[in-house]
Amino acid sequence: MKKGMFITLEGPDGSGKSTQIEAIKAFFEKKGEKVLITREPGGTPISEKIRTIILDRENKEMEPMTETMLYAAARAQHVAQVIRPALNEGIHVICDRFLDSSIAYQGYGRGLGDCVAVINAYAVQDCMPDLTFLLKLNPEIGRKRIDKEKQDRIEQESIDFHNRVFNGYEELELQFPDRIVGIDANQEIGEIREEILYHIERHLER
Amino acid sequence: MKKGMFITLEGPDGSGKSTQIEAIKAFFEKKGEKVLITREPGGTPISEKIRTIILDRENKEMEPMTETMLYAAARAQHVAQVIRPALNEGIHVICDRFLDSSIAYQGYGRGLGDCVAVINAYAVQDCMPDLTFLLKLNPEIGRKRIDKEKQDRIEQESIDFHNRVFNGYEELELQFPDRIVGIDANQEIGEIREEILYHIERHLER
Repeated sequence: MKKGMFITLEGPDGSGKSTQIEAIKAFFEKKGEKVLITREPGGTPISEKIRTIILDRENKEMEPMTETMLYAAARAQHVAQVIRPALNEGIHVICDRFLDSSIAYQGYGRGLGDCVAVINAYAVQDCMPDLTFLLKLNPEIGRKRIDKEKQDRIEQESIDFHNRVFNGYEELELQFPDRIVGIDANQEIGEIREEILYHIERHLER
Repeated sequence: MKKGMFITLEGPDGSGKSTQIEAIKAFFEKKGEKVLITREPGGTPISEKIRTIILDRENKEMEPMTETMLYAAARAQHVAQVIRPALNEGIHVICDRFLDSSIAYQGYGRGLGDCVAVINAYAVQDCMPDLTFLLKLNPEIGRKRIDKEKQDRIEQESIDFHNRVFNGYEELELQFPDRIVGIDANQEIGEIREEILYHIERHLER
């Protein structure tokens, strides 16, 4: 049986990832194919418990390395219990954030560097996305779209932090041009959707 | 200021680690020196939250890699927030389990091998114990000393698992003879105490 396609969406908060995920889902379902939508951190009962610790605003004193390991723990469980089995059954998996988020947020944002990729390689083993859409939006614009009262521990970080994260994403885009597709998220929702679906169709034709 | 001494205790559950920790504490306090007793997983508010996820018997489906990353997350926080600052202030730190537990339980018990040491090197950085006492007791005997109703997710693993863990501990003892002191935990409590204090005194005279 043909394996499912693994698509991840990355980018600053407020860049419109959720909207586009729904569009990708509709695209596959129109073709009569099965789709699983999931998110990180989270996606399994254990990973959601880990998510609660990561995002809780009370955990102010959390060390960057602790944060990195917690994301990797949640990801290892998510890959083994949900993503890999679905792909093996031929189900397409669309995931809101994946290991590029860790590299951008902990590697670049927190300044931990290369160890984040090493740690995450253990978490995902060989289960890497086929295509990653990086929705590129100035982090300051993204932030304005998020309700300040509802910001989690990561969202409420300084604009300097979010600029380093964005810079990290741009580095990743250069490093993995075959997998990561950068998309200008300042465009209309419909334009972004067209661009994303074009790249998915091109990938399916390979 | 002289740095504190970092001592860890390892060995199967029921091998008498807690009793000996109290004896070590009394030894240092008699000399008028400050001692901090702590444990893993745990030792900080964030690490204790992680501990709850690790040991919860409901989390049956937890992957070995998730478990490894969670222990490493709790440890990174514990080292940065508690252990390293105490040692730098000249306080002796006695810790019930530390990274050798991860290598024995996840590396050997779960069969994950060398990656456990790599991941944990990121968690502890250079903060390694000066002395580690490995209380050697047949895991079957240790298990009988634990109330079955109160067993956590790791304690309730099969005897085969606990035998692999014990074998891992013995490998570590051979690998790090300068740091790890194996002690026959079948001896009387007083005999074990004498042996431990002898090694601490010898270390202090170095």
